[in-house]
Amino acid sequence: MKSLIIYAHPYEGSFNNFVLSKTKNLLIEKGNLVDVIDLNSDGFNPVMTKDDLKLFSKGEYFDSLASNYAKRLKEADELVLIFPIWWYGEPAILKGFYDKVLLKGHTYDEVDHQLKGLLKADKATILTTANITEEIFKFLGDPIKNVLSNGILNTVGINNVSWIHCSTVHDNSSRDEYLNKIEDHFNK
Amino acid sequence: MKSLIIYAHPYEGSFNNFVLSKTKNLLIEKGNLVDVIDLNSDGFNPVMTKDDLKLFSKGEYFDSLASNYAKRLKEADELVLIFPIWWYGEPAILKGFYDKVLLKGHTYDEVDHQLKGLLKADKATILTTANITEEIFKFLGDPIKNVLSNGILNTVGINNVSWIHCSTVHDNSSRDEYLNKIEDHFNK
Repeated sequence: MKSLIIYAHPYEGSFNNFVLSKTKNLLIEKGNLVDVIDLNSDGFNPVMTKDDLKLFSKGEYFDSLASNYAKRLKEADELVLIFPIWWYGEPAILKGFYDKVLLKGHTYDEVDHQLKGLLKADKATILTTANITEEIFKFLGDPIKNVLSNGILNTVGINNVSWIHCSTVHDNSSRDEYLNKIEDHFNK
Repeated sequence: MKSLIIYAHPYEGSFNNFVLSKTKNLLIEKGNLVDVIDLNSDGFNPVMTKDDLKLFSKGEYFDSLASNYAKRLKEADELVLIFPIWWYGEPAILKGFYDKVLLKGHTYDEVDHQLKGLLKADKATILTTANITEEIFKFLGDPIKNVLSNGILNTVGINNVSWIHCSTVHDNSSRDEYLNKIEDHFNK
Protein backbone atom coordinates (compact mmCIF):
# COMPACT_ATOMS: atom_id res chain seq x y z
CA MET A 1 0.00 0.00 0.00
CA LYS A 2 1.52 3.27 -1.16
CA SER A 3 0.43 6.40 0.72
CA LEU A 4 1.17 9.81 -0.74
CA ILE A 5 1.06 12.77 1.67
CA ILE A 6 0.67 16.22 0.08
CA TYR A 7 1.73 18.81 2.63
CA ALA A 8 1.51 22.61 2.48
CA HIS A 9 2.92 24.68 5.34
CA PRO A 10 5.99 26.95 5.16
CA TYR A 11 7.20 26.70 8.77
CA GLU A 12 8.95 23.56 10.03
CA GLY A 13 8.04 24.43 13.64
CA SER A 14 4.30 24.57 12.92
CA PHE A 15 1.60 22.35 14.40
CA ASN A 16 0.86 21.21 10.85
CA ASN A 17 4.44 19.96 10.62
CA PHE A 18 3.88 17.97 13.80
CA VAL A 19 0.72 16.52 12.23
CA LEU A 20 2.78 15.60 9.15
CA SER A 21 5.32 13.66 11.26
CA LYS A 22 2.63 11.94 13.28
CA THR A 23 0.66 10.93 10.19
CA LYS A 24 3.77 9.68 8.43
CA ASN A 25 4.65 7.52 11.45
CA LEU A 26 1.12 6.13 11.73
CA LEU A 27 1.23 5.08 8.08
CA ILE A 28 4.71 3.56 8.38
CA GLU A 29 3.58 1.60 11.45
CA LYS A 30 0.76 0.15 9.34
CA GLY A 31 3.39 -1.14 6.95
CA ASN A 32 2.61 1.36 4.17
CA LEU A 33 5.18 2.81 1.84
CA VAL A 34 5.01 6.57 2.45
CA ASP A 35 5.91 9.29 -0.03
CA VAL A 36 5.73 12.96 1.01
CA ILE A 37 5.30 15.95 -1.29
CA ASP A 38 6.31 18.96 0.81
CA LEU A 39 5.29 21.77 -1.51
CA ASN A 40 6.94 24.65 0.35
CA SER A 41 10.17 22.85 1.04
CA ASP A 42 10.32 21.70 -2.62
CA GLY A 43 9.98 25.34 -3.67
CA PHE A 44 7.02 24.47 -5.91
CA ASN A 45 5.86 27.45 -7.99
CA PRO A 46 2.03 27.40 -7.94
CA VAL A 47 1.76 30.04 -10.67
CA MET A 48 0.58 28.82 -14.06
CA THR A 49 2.96 30.62 -16.39
CA LYS A 50 2.56 31.33 -20.09
CA ASP A 51 4.84 28.34 -20.79
CA ASP A 52 2.77 26.02 -18.57
CA LEU A 53 -0.44 27.21 -20.20
CA LYS A 54 0.85 26.68 -23.73
CA LEU A 55 1.38 22.94 -23.03
CA PHE A 56 -1.60 22.57 -20.67
CA SER A 57 -4.18 22.23 -23.44
CA LYS A 58 -2.05 19.49 -25.03
CA GLY A 59 -2.00 17.65 -21.68
CA GLU A 60 1.73 18.20 -21.26
CA TYR A 61 3.79 19.56 -18.37
CA PHE A 62 6.26 22.43 -18.76
CA ASP A 63 7.14 22.49 -15.04
CA SER A 64 9.25 19.39 -14.36
CA LEU A 65 8.23 19.39 -10.69
CA ALA A 66 4.54 19.30 -11.69
CA SER A 67 5.34 16.37 -13.98
CA ASN A 68 7.22 14.59 -11.19
CA TYR A 69 4.25 15.14 -8.84
CA ALA A 70 1.84 13.69 -11.42
CA LYS A 71 3.95 10.53 -11.66
CA ARG A 72 3.94 10.10 -7.88
CA LEU A 73 0.17 10.77 -7.75
CA LYS A 74 -0.44 8.00 -10.27
CA GLU A 75 1.62 5.53 -8.19
CA ALA A 76 -0.30 6.15 -4.95
CA ASP A 77 -3.01 3.90 -3.53
CA GLU A 78 -4.20 6.58 -1.13
CA LEU A 79 -3.71 10.32 -0.64
CA VAL A 80 -3.41 12.37 2.53
CA LEU A 81 -3.65 16.17 2.27
CA ILE A 82 -2.35 18.19 5.24
CA PHE A 83 -2.74 21.97 5.26
CA PRO A 84 -3.91 25.02 7.23
CA ILE A 85 -7.14 26.69 6.09
CA TRP A 86 -6.48 30.25 4.93
CA TRP A 87 -9.44 32.31 3.77
CA TYR A 88 -11.74 29.26 3.83
CA GLY A 89 -9.51 27.20 1.54
CA GLU A 90 -6.10 25.84 0.66
CA PRO A 91 -2.91 27.93 0.80
CA ALA A 92 -2.15 29.18 -2.73
CA ILE A 93 0.72 26.72 -3.09
CA LEU A 94 -1.76 23.80 -2.82
CA LYS A 95 -4.32 25.46 -5.11
CA GLY A 96 -1.53 25.71 -7.69
CA PHE A 97 -0.84 22.00 -7.26
CA TYR A 98 -4.39 21.32 -8.52
CA ASP A 99 -4.03 23.91 -11.30
CA LYS A 100 -0.71 22.62 -12.63
CA VAL A 101 -0.58 18.90 -11.75
CA LEU A 102 -4.15 17.63 -12.26
CA LEU A 103 -4.08 17.64 -16.05
CA LYS A 104 -6.58 16.06 -18.41
CA GLY A 105 -5.15 12.88 -19.91
CA HIS A 106 -3.09 12.23 -16.78
CA THR A 107 -5.34 12.44 -13.72
CA TYR A 108 -8.75 12.43 -15.44
CA ASP A 109 -10.18 12.17 -18.92
CA GLU A 110 -13.31 13.08 -20.83
CA VAL A 111 -15.19 10.13 -22.28
CA ASP A 112 -18.53 10.74 -24.07
CA HIS A 113 -18.78 14.20 -22.43
CA GLN A 114 -18.37 12.61 -18.99
CA LEU A 115 -15.30 13.14 -16.79
CA LYS A 116 -13.57 9.94 -15.72
CA GLY A 117 -10.93 9.80 -12.98
CA LEU A 118 -7.61 8.17 -13.90
CA LEU A 119 -5.89 7.84 -10.51
CA LYS A 120 -5.77 4.34 -9.09
CA ALA A 121 -6.07 5.73 -5.53
CA ASP A 122 -9.66 5.42 -4.33
CA LYS A 123 -9.20 6.87 -0.85
CA ALA A 124 -8.13 10.28 0.47
CA THR A 125 -7.91 11.88 3.90
CA ILE A 126 -7.96 15.66 4.33
CA LEU A 127 -6.37 17.00 7.54
CA THR A 128 -6.92 20.72 8.17
CA THR A 129 -6.38 23.30 10.91
CA ALA A 130 -8.08 26.68 11.32
CA ASN A 131 -9.72 29.00 13.74
CA ILE A 132 -13.14 28.38 12.28
CA THR A 133 -15.58 25.59 12.93
CA GLU A 134 -17.26 23.16 10.57
CA GLU A 135 -20.47 25.24 11.05
CA ILE A 136 -18.87 28.30 9.44
CA PHE A 137 -17.77 26.12 6.53
CA LYS A 138 -21.36 24.91 6.13
CA PHE A 139 -22.59 28.50 6.13
CA LEU A 140 -20.13 29.24 3.31
CA GLY A 141 -21.20 26.32 1.09
CA ASP A 142 -18.90 23.74 2.71
CA PRO A 143 -15.96 24.28 0.32
CA ILE A 144 -13.78 21.45 1.67
CA LYS A 145 -16.55 18.89 1.23
CA ASN A 146 -18.10 20.34 -1.90
CA VAL A 147 -15.21 21.75 -3.90
CA LEU A 148 -12.23 19.70 -2.75
CA SER A 149 -13.88 16.38 -2.00
CA ASN A 150 -16.89 16.23 -4.37
CA GLY A 151 -15.39 18.50 -7.01
CA ILE A 152 -11.65 17.98 -7.34
CA LEU A 153 -10.91 14.59 -5.74
CA ASN A 154 -13.95 12.86 -7.25
CA THR A 155 -12.99 14.14 -10.70
CA VAL A 156 -9.59 12.43 -10.53
CA GLY A 157 -11.26 9.19 -9.37
CA ILE A 158 -11.20 9.32 -5.57
CA ASN A 159 -14.64 8.71 -4.11
CA ASN A 160 -13.84 7.66 -0.56
CA VAL A 161 -12.81 10.93 1.16
CA SER A 162 -12.55 11.62 4.91
CA TRP A 163 -12.08 15.11 6.36
CA ILE A 164 -10.71 15.66 9.87
CA HIS A 165 -10.62 19.27 11.04
CA CYS A 166 -9.04 21.07 14.01
CA SER A 167 -11.32 24.10 14.48
CA THR A 168 -9.33 25.98 17.15
CA VAL A 169 -5.70 25.37 16.35
CA HIS A 170 -4.34 27.52 19.21
CA ASP A 171 -6.27 25.56 21.82
CA ASN A 172 -4.49 22.57 23.35
CA SER A 173 -7.57 20.45 23.97
CA SER A 174 -8.76 21.02 20.39
CA ARG A 175 -5.30 19.95 19.17
CA ASP A 176 -5.37 16.81 21.32
CA GLU A 177 -8.83 15.89 20.10
CA TYR A 178 -7.66 16.39 16.52
CA LEU A 179 -4.57 14.21 16.99
CA ASN A 180 -6.69 11.47 18.59
CA LYS A 181 -9.13 11.54 15.68
CA ILE A 182 -6.22 11.21 13.24
CA GLU A 183 -4.83 8.25 15.16
CA ASP A 184 -8.22 6.53 15.29
CA HIS A 185 -8.78 7.18 11.59
CA PHE A 186 -5.51 5.62 10.42
CA ASN A 187 -5.68 2.74 12.90
CA LYS A 188 -9.19 1.64 12.06
CA MET B 1 -14.36 57.35 -8.03
CA LYS B 2 -11.34 55.08 -7.90
CA SER B 3 -11.75 51.61 -9.44
CA LEU B 4 -9.18 48.93 -8.72
CA ILE B 5 -9.07 45.97 -11.12
CA ILE B 6 -7.37 42.83 -9.84
CA TYR B 7 -6.50 40.65 -12.81
CA ALA B 8 -5.10 37.11 -12.93
CA HIS B 9 -4.26 35.52 -16.28
CA PRO B 10 -0.77 34.69 -17.56
CA TYR B 11 -1.33 35.10 -21.31
CA GLU B 12 -1.66 38.54 -22.88
CA GLY B 13 -3.52 37.06 -25.89
CA SER B 14 -6.26 35.51 -23.72
CA PHE B 15 -9.97 36.32 -23.78
CA ASN B 16 -9.58 37.39 -20.14
CA ASN B 17 -7.05 39.98 -21.29
CA PHE B 18 -9.60 41.29 -23.77
CA VAL B 19 -12.14 41.49 -20.93
CA LEU B 20 -9.57 43.42 -18.89
CA SER B 21 -9.11 46.01 -21.66
CA LYS B 22 -12.82 46.33 -22.25
CA THR B 23 -13.59 46.75 -18.55
CA LYS B 24 -10.82 49.29 -18.10
CA ASN B 25 -12.18 51.34 -21.02
CA LEU B 26 -15.76 51.15 -19.72
CA LEU B 27 -14.61 52.49 -16.35
CA ILE B 28 -12.47 55.24 -17.90
CA GLU B 29 -15.43 56.31 -20.08
CA LYS B 30 -17.48 56.70 -16.87
CA GLY B 31 -14.85 59.14 -15.64
CA ASN B 32 -13.38 56.79 -13.03
CA LEU B 33 -9.73 56.68 -12.08
CA VAL B 34 -8.63 53.14 -12.89
CA ASP B 35 -5.78 51.24 -11.23
CA VAL B 36 -4.90 47.72 -12.44
CA ILE B 37 -3.12 45.04 -10.43
CA ASP B 38 -1.93 42.50 -13.03
CA LEU B 39 -0.72 39.72 -10.74
CA ASN B 40 1.05 37.60 -13.38
CA SER B 41 2.71 40.47 -15.16
CA ASP B 42 3.84 41.90 -11.77
CA GLY B 43 5.46 38.53 -11.01
CA PHE B 44 3.58 38.35 -7.69
CA ASN B 45 4.66 35.35 -5.60
CA PRO B 46 1.47 33.87 -4.08
CA VAL B 47 3.41 31.59 -1.73
CA MET B 48 3.32 32.55 1.94
CA THR B 49 6.95 32.05 2.93
CA LYS B 50 8.41 31.58 6.40
CA ASP B 51 9.37 35.28 6.39
CA ASP B 52 5.85 36.38 5.42
CA LEU B 53 4.34 34.15 8.08
CA LYS B 54 6.63 35.48 10.82
CA LEU B 55 5.29 39.02 10.31
CA PHE B 56 1.74 37.96 9.39
CA SER B 57 0.60 37.49 13.01
CA LYS B 58 1.89 40.99 13.83
CA GLY B 59 -0.17 42.40 10.94
CA GLU B 60 2.97 43.34 8.97
CA TYR B 61 4.02 42.65 5.40
CA PHE B 62 7.35 41.06 4.49
CA ASP B 63 6.59 41.02 0.74
CA SER B 64 6.81 44.63 -0.45
CA LEU B 65 4.48 43.91 -3.39
CA ALA B 66 1.82 42.60 -0.96
CA SER B 67 2.22 45.78 1.05
CA ASN B 68 1.93 47.91 -2.10
CA TYR B 69 -1.25 46.01 -3.08
CA ALA B 70 -2.76 46.61 0.38
CA LYS B 71 -2.18 50.36 0.04
CA ARG B 72 -3.89 50.40 -3.38
CA LEU B 73 -6.78 48.28 -2.03
CA LYS B 74 -7.37 50.80 0.76
CA GLU B 75 -7.50 53.68 -1.73
CA ALA B 76 -10.14 52.06 -3.96
CA ASP B 77 -13.85 52.91 -3.98
CA GLU B 78 -14.73 49.77 -5.91
CA LEU B 79 -13.04 46.51 -6.88
CA VAL B 80 -13.25 44.49 -10.08
CA LEU B 81 -11.84 40.95 -10.07
CA ILE B 82 -11.16 39.35 -13.47
CA PHE B 83 -9.98 35.74 -13.67
CA PRO B 84 -10.54 32.33 -15.27
CA ILE B 85 -12.06 29.60 -13.07
CA TRP B 86 -9.61 26.72 -12.59
CA TRP B 87 -10.76 23.74 -10.53
CA TYR B 88 -13.88 25.62 -9.39
CA GLY B 89 -11.96 28.59 -8.02
CA GLU B 90 -9.33 31.28 -8.47
CA PRO B 91 -5.93 30.63 -10.07
CA ALA B 92 -3.37 30.10 -7.27
CA ILE B 93 -1.86 33.54 -7.89
CA LEU B 94 -5.16 35.17 -6.87
CA LYS B 95 -5.68 32.84 -3.89
CA GLY B 96 -2.23 33.96 -2.71
CA PHE B 97 -3.32 37.59 -3.05
CA TYR B 98 -6.01 36.90 -0.41
CA ASP B 99 -3.54 34.93 1.75
CA LYS B 100 -0.79 37.55 1.72
CA VAL B 101 -2.53 40.92 1.21
CA LEU B 102 -5.76 40.70 3.22
CA LEU B 103 -4.16 41.06 6.65
CA LYS B 104 -5.88 41.71 9.93
CA GLY B 105 -5.38 45.30 11.02
CA HIS B 106 -5.22 46.43 7.39
CA THR B 107 -8.22 45.08 5.50
CA TYR B 108 -10.33 43.88 8.44
CA ASP B 109 -10.20 43.86 12.22
CA GLU B 110 -11.62 41.92 15.13
CA VAL B 111 -13.78 44.00 17.48
CA ASP B 112 -15.54 42.25 20.40
CA HIS B 113 -15.03 38.85 18.69
CA GLN B 114 -16.71 40.17 15.54
CA LEU B 115 -14.89 40.72 12.25
CA LYS B 116 -15.17 44.25 10.87
CA GLY B 117 -14.16 45.19 7.31
CA LEU B 118 -11.72 48.09 6.96
CA LEU B 119 -11.81 48.77 3.21
CA LYS B 120 -13.68 51.89 2.18
CA ALA B 121 -14.81 50.19 -1.06
CA ASP B 122 -18.37 48.94 -0.67
CA LYS B 123 -18.83 47.49 -4.15
CA ALA B 124 -17.14 44.68 -6.09
CA THR B 125 -17.70 43.01 -9.45
CA ILE B 126 -16.42 39.50 -10.15
CA LEU B 127 -15.88 38.63 -13.84
CA THR B 128 -15.09 34.95 -14.53
CA THR B 129 -14.73 32.57 -17.46
CA ALA B 130 -14.94 28.78 -17.44
CA ASN B 131 -16.35 25.79 -19.19
CA ILE B 132 -18.81 25.12 -16.43
CA THR B 133 -22.21 26.61 -15.78
CA GLU B 134 -23.60 28.37 -12.73
CA GLU B 135 -25.59 25.14 -12.07
CA ILE B 136 -22.40 23.15 -11.50
CA PHE B 137 -21.18 25.82 -9.12
CA LYS B 138 -24.45 25.54 -7.19
CA PHE B 139 -24.05 21.77 -7.00
CA LEU B 140 -20.57 22.33 -5.51
CA GLY B 141 -21.72 24.75 -2.80
CA ASP B 142 -21.52 27.89 -4.96
CA PRO B 143 -17.93 28.79 -4.03
CA ILE B 144 -17.80 32.11 -5.89
CA LYS B 145 -20.93 33.38 -4.13
CA ASN B 146 -20.36 31.72 -0.78
CA VAL B 147 -16.60 31.76 -0.27
CA LEU B 148 -15.43 34.73 -2.34
CA SER B 149 -18.43 37.04 -2.06
CA ASN B 150 -19.99 36.17 1.34
CA GLY B 151 -16.78 34.95 2.94
CA ILE B 152 -13.78 36.94 1.75
CA LEU B 153 -15.19 40.19 0.30
CA ASN B 154 -17.76 40.68 3.07
CA THR B 155 -15.04 40.20 5.70
CA VAL B 156 -13.01 43.11 4.32
CA GLY B 157 -16.14 45.29 4.24
CA ILE B 158 -17.59 44.86 0.74
CA ASN B 159 -21.26 43.91 0.86
CA ASN B 160 -22.43 44.89 -2.60
CA VAL B 161 -21.01 42.16 -4.87
CA SER B 162 -22.04 41.29 -8.45
CA TRP B 163 -20.85 38.18 -10.27
CA ILE B 164 -20.92 37.92 -14.07
CA HIS B 165 -19.88 34.55 -15.50
CA CYS B 166 -19.06 33.28 -19.00
CA SER B 167 -19.91 29.57 -18.79
CA THR B 168 -18.61 28.39 -22.19
CA VAL B 169 -15.55 30.49 -22.87
CA HIS B 170 -14.73 28.80 -26.21
CA ASP B 171 -18.17 29.59 -27.62
CA ASN B 172 -18.51 32.90 -29.47
CA SER B 173 -22.14 33.53 -28.60
CA SER B 174 -21.44 32.86 -24.91
CA ARG B 175 -18.54 35.33 -25.12
CA ASP B 176 -20.71 37.98 -26.76
CA GLU B 177 -23.44 37.55 -24.18
CA TYR B 178 -20.82 37.88 -21.42
CA LEU B 179 -19.35 41.05 -22.93
CA ASN B 180 -22.83 42.55 -23.27
CA LYS B 181 -23.63 41.78 -19.64
CA ILE B 182 -20.38 43.46 -18.57
CA GLU B 183 -21.19 46.54 -20.63
CA ASP B 184 -24.72 46.74 -19.20
CA HIS B 185 -23.43 46.28 -15.68
CA PHE B 186 -20.89 49.10 -15.80
CA ASN B 187 -23.17 51.44 -17.72
CA LYS B 188 -26.17 51.13 -15.44
